[in-house]
Amino acid sequence: MKYAFGVDIGGTTVKMGLLDYEGNIEESWEIPTRTEDNGENILPDIASSIKAKIEEKGLNKEDIAGVGVGAPGAVDSNGVIFQAVNIGWGRKNLQEELEKLVELPVKAGNDANVAALGEAWRGGGRGHSDMLMVTLGTGVGGGIIIGGKIVNGVAGSGGEIGHIHIEDNETKKCGCGNKGCFEQYASATGIVLLASRILGATDKDSVLRRGQLSSKGIFDAAKAGDELAVEITKKYGYYLGKGLAICATILNPEVIVIGGGVSKCGEIIFDLLKPSFEEYVFEGCQETAFALAELGNNAGICGAAKMVIGD
Amino acid sequence: MKYAFGVDIGGTTVKMGLLDYEGNIEESWEIPTRTEDNGENILPDIASSIKAKIEEKGLNKEDIAGVGVGAPGAVDSNGVIFQAVNIGWGRKNLQEELEKLVELPVKAGNDANVAALGEAWRGGGRGHSDMLMVTLGTGVGGGIIIGGKIVNGVAGSGGEIGHIHIEDNETKKCGCGNKGCFEQYASATGIVLLASRILGATDKDSVLRRGQLSSKGIFDAAKAGDELAVEITKKYGYYLGKGLAICATILNPEVIVIGGGVSKCGEIIFDLLKPSFEEYVFEGCQETAFALAELGNNAGICGAAKMVIGD
Repeated sequence: MKYAFGVDIGGTTVKMGLLDYEGNIEESWEIPTRTEDNGENILPDIASSIKAKIEEKGLNKEDIAGVGVGAPGAVDSNGVIFQAVNIGWGRKNLQEELEKLVELPVKAGNDANVAALGEAWRGGGRGHSDMLMVTLGTGVGGGIIIGGKIVNGVAGSGGEIGHIHIEDNETKKCGCGNKGCFEQYASATGIVLLASRILGATDKDSVLRRGQLSSKGIFDAAKAGDELAVEITKKYGYYLGKGLAICATILNPEVIVIGGGVSKCGEIIFDLLKPSFEEYVFEGCQETAFALAELGNNAGICGAAKMVIGD
Repeated sequence: MKYAFGVDIGGTTVKMGLLDYEGNIEESWEIPTRTEDNGENILPDIASSIKAKIEEKGLNKEDIAGVGVGAPGAVDSNGVIFQAVNIGWGRKNLQEELEKLVELPVKAGNDANVAALGEAWRGGGRGHSDMLMVTLGTGVGGGIIIGGKIVNGVAGSGGEIGHIHIEDNETKKCGCGNKGCFEQYASATGIVLLASRILGATDKDSVLRRGQLSSKGIFDAAKAGDELAVEITKKYGYYLGKGLAICATILNPEVIVIGGGVSKCGEIIFDLLKPSFEEYVFEGCQETAFALAELGNNAGICGAAKMVIGD
């Protein structure tokens, strides 16, 4: 049996896993992400943890394909990360540095792209070689898999679909400085913004007027039949479908996998996005399939391991 | 020396070439595209012409990698074409049919995608493995090359960037049935539409009020300093830059290669598109390079040959 390590570096913890070549997680564990001192301990901590695990399990190095790593920043195809503000890193050759420490082959990628590869391999996109993944969280992340491989982009920004322009009549700025980005509508923050706009434009009552707005609260209220909540989720679906239609027209993927906190509302999200998806997508791409992400927080370690396992 | 044949099937002629492994065109010629009888003679005509050329040049079959073909329709990665209305074809396995006739390995692709591969190999995109090509003709075509390979898409519609939605406030329908498609503004037809709108909105004089509007005429008038023509080309550049910014944010390509009739205006097109490109593109993709296509009508045979030559 051959193995690979998958590592997913987050802002507070590093998630780690030992996986076999079928993608089964033999074991997974976490270590804290020590962001102090510009995050200089992070890679040594990861290397020590892997070496300890190899020892503990009595593994042969020859049976280990290597270590795949997902990191929260743009990573180019040589494993150079440009910046990872929330863990203190500036530009560094992540792949090379970790390889020296761990004495195993290393491959590095952007965390959203690596998670997409995990979903393509073992999750909602399995069986498909061309996939777009969109993660609807606080922001909107994305990852593109073509022919089973991550589309990194020359500067590691491949799949940054959260910042495509999808609305001409926006007056509020996105965090990136532009106006009308996909993320301004399709994120968990986006649906709250849409809700406050729709609630502000009418006096009609709604359960949403009591308590704080949240993406979960809005979807729950819509499922319970609250009229304004239904209107908000439809508007949300309109923007989600519009943005994904633009991506699908360019890429013509087999499947679009939807993950992240907002996707916890379930398959209703497909009904919400499809009308505008079908309106805006090129006719040759009408047959695009949709699926929910399946791996949750394990997508990262799974995709990371797959990077070193290869085809 | 090893060779490959490149074939580019157009509506009136089939362009054919014999290329070496460096991409040098040893010889190129054309045969008519016989579209009658649902285009049933097209593949036999191509096969006969190739066999005659092999005989004429006294080539060994062992020295020929095969035949690459670009066709005017959506082609999937198995070489199945879904439809090619203007040459009379319905769905057919182009690759398999031609292989039987010509008794050589065949690869088939969509003509715009194949031309993009040609430009990536030997034209404006050479030296770059991740490239987006946009062809500004009567319509807007596109082709995506990632890792030196064509992104076909599951239904052969990869790179159909002419039909991404880029304008919310459009009232006129695109040929595809949607409103606000990239092609409605960035094509040769698009600039004429923009011109008629701008000329119609004012009484100001312009040389463009005399004679018929054409993309060449508009660029020539702008270069000569005609104020309204300058305004029209700026508006054209705004839309071109906006559409390409959306594509670049998703793909983060090294270079965007611009071809087609409108690109004959030259490098001025970069100055026109850059302000809105920089406005709309994600900051991580600001460094995208631009280049003009270099191969003209030879891009198709060049890319077609490259498909069978491989890496």
